[in-house]
Amino acid sequence: MSITGNSMSNPYSSVSDLLSNVRNFKIIECNATMLSEFGCDYIELTNPAASPQSRDDCEAICKLGLKAKILTHTRCTLEDAKLACDCGVDGVDVVIGTSQFLREHSLGGKDMVAITKQAIEVIEYIKSRGCEVRFSSEDSFRSDLVDLLSIYRAVNNVGVGRVGVADTVGCASPRQVYDLVRTLRGCVSTDIEVHFHDDTGCAVANSFTALEAGATHVDTSVLGIGERNGICPLGALMARMMPTSRDYILSKYKLHQLKAIEDFVAEAVEINVPFNNPITGFCAFTHKAGIHAKAILNSPSTYEILKPEDFGLSSVHFTSRLTGWNAIKSRVDQLGLDANSWPEDKIREVTAKIKQIADLKVMTLDETDALIRSFHLDLQKGHG
Amino acid sequence: MSITGNSMSNPYSSVSDLLSNVRNFKIIECNATMLSEFGCDYIELTNPAASPQSRDDCEAICKLGLKAKILTHTRCTLEDAKLACDCGVDGVDVVIGTSQFLREHSLGGKDMVAITKQAIEVIEYIKSRGCEVRFSSEDSFRSDLVDLLSIYRAVNNVGVGRVGVADTVGCASPRQVYDLVRTLRGCVSTDIEVHFHDDTGCAVANSFTALEAGATHVDTSVLGIGERNGICPLGALMARMMPTSRDYILSKYKLHQLKAIEDFVAEAVEINVPFNNPITGFCAFTHKAGIHAKAILNSPSTYEILKPEDFGLSSVHFTSRLTGWNAIKSRVDQLGLDANSWPEDKIREVTAKIKQIADLKVMTLDETDALIRSFHLDLQKGHG
Repeated sequence: MSITGNSMSNPYSSVSDLLSNVRNFKIIECNATMLSEFGCDYIELTNPAASPQSRDDCEAICKLGLKAKILTHTRCTLEDAKLACDCGVDGVDVVIGTSQFLREHSLGGKDMVAITKQAIEVIEYIKSRGCEVRFSSEDSFRSDLVDLLSIYRAVNNVGVGRVGVADTVGCASPRQVYDLVRTLRGCVSTDIEVHFHDDTGCAVANSFTALEAGATHVDTSVLGIGERNGICPLGALMARMMPTSRDYILSKYKLHQLKAIEDFVAEAVEINVPFNNPITGFCAFTHKAGIHAKAILNSPSTYEILKPEDFGLSSVHFTSRLTGWNAIKSRVDQLGLDANSWPEDKIREVTAKIKQIADLKVMTLDETDALIRSFHLDLQKGHG
Repeated sequence: MSITGNSMSNPYSSVSDLLSNVRNFKIIECNATMLSEFGCDYIELTNPAASPQSRDDCEAICKLGLKAKILTHTRCTLEDAKLACDCGVDGVDVVIGTSQFLREHSLGGKDMVAITKQAIEVIEYIKSRGCEVRFSSEDSFRSDLVDLLSIYRAVNNVGVGRVGVADTVGCASPRQVYDLVRTLRGCVSTDIEVHFHDDTGCAVANSFTALEAGATHVDTSVLGIGERNGICPLGALMARMMPTSRDYILSKYKLHQLKAIEDFVAEAVEINVPFNNPITGFCAFTHKAGIHAKAILNSPSTYEILKPEDFGLSSVHFTSRLTGWNAIKSRVDQLGLDANSWPEDKIREVTAKIKQIADLKVMTLDETDALIRSFHLDLQKGHG
């Protein structure tokens, strides 16, 4: 039986979909070289035009000979593109604002004809240098749909490698994403890359939904670090994909390295891994409620669609006032104290005692175990 | 002009939808009494049967006379329901496992006929006590669709107040959510409550999509705190709804209190507010990249779909090596140093100097400002 159980008696997963790429996608990572080893397909670096250090970093990383391809993300100008190619990257990801907002406030009022002309010129230049090229619009979900499709079609026709859809402001919702990517899928023959900011908490869901609609590449970063509250986190995307495409993920990504990568980046930028981070947050696999703990002890797949062991981690069971007697009974057995030899009353009595104490203070598993053992001693002495 | 700009030239928001409740929904909050004041419609407490403290808490909170209605979440048994009603709650939210997994591992192999009979008995009891009653299935997305619709229809027919859809394991994706809630909307006339766990990072997106499909009530908790990595966070849901239903949210919820509520809860349970928390995370409104900072200074709505002031907060602009000269030029003006009187070369020179220093160390705004002022002094002395 599959650990996820998702494929069993689930009315939603049985219909196959030729366009969906949830079982066949690529990740474009915007952070840290450890990610090549992890299995990321691309590593996207800061624009070398941003500062002298950015340029030095880019040149140095290109020389490492990583398995992952090295990209950089630049403005859609010949100047930036030339510098990027000079640094030795495998590909250049160019971006230009297409929404009315950005054309007005960032591009000094350029119209779509001028933007398209500029895009084609830059794309042809990058291709002439032997590099991959991706063209992305910026703020795609507040751009005019016809403008968007026109420019994507134009760059598709000059042989761009990928087109990119970017929710630069984090406003998109999953159904909008599905509609736009599905529509785009019918208009271009290139790969489709997606980039989702997380301002409204939808970056992971939007990435997943884009894959369902036919996108091929997803932009992520470690812990989602990026402008404002960031983009789709690599770890959360892994969590999202595992129930859907477990075999693909396990064959491609070294999931046991995820925690080390996140810890490394968190330390480097001086942040804490969020308590509720998918997979590696300190409580991602904890169970407190009695009805949950009971079922988990019977079968982890009842409440865990992710197997902590797949990530080199394990479940944690707090003892709290929400603990139920089934959980305690299982613990009695785990301690080798044969729960079946206990009168049911005694199990309920020790459970009530544990709940009472857990109302007063946090109980470690050691404390719980000691209390269970003390009741067991009473039983043996016939005090029960 | 709307700050979000979402309604302008956006091909996705122009089609109205009679079933969608994104502009008219209710929140069921599972944490803390401050939330009544914030504007939450319901506060859902731990099952009073869980422990003596849980029972005492429930009775005490019921006596506070809050504006929000007090609910408790219990197993679907007469025993739990009776205790809940005795505590003085306004309503009881009962839940029972309907998936094959839970029926086998949590309910000892009960079939759907027995579960339905039990549900009806409990619902009728709670109604007879004059309380609201919600019936929810558990692990709804791994339950058989026909079983689900049958039991929802049965409880609808005996006059349940709300039916609940729960993604107990966090496996659902937005399109699954839309399909199930939309289908359910056609089968029952009651309100529909949704409850999403965040194991795969989709809780916020799923809640939003459920509202689009006709759900009426959303379960949240402060910072998403709940089993494993939690449920839909209250703050993130606010962030998600603001671009869609700004007027409704502002009229109903005291958003300025959000940060204080989150800080209070974080301190109480000894966690840190995640760095990337929507709205209140320390970098939620920070802008580093040059092209972002430039546009933000021209018009915040270019990269901010949420107005920090709506939440009693403000934007933060780091000075980093990614700073662009447009941002520096704006800063010159903000300091009252008339950027137009500067030769463009001088602006570019100070920008290059700032980028160079920011490669070496984190620069505060004070340091940046001091550097700008020193260049201004040079100009005045004719050293430029």
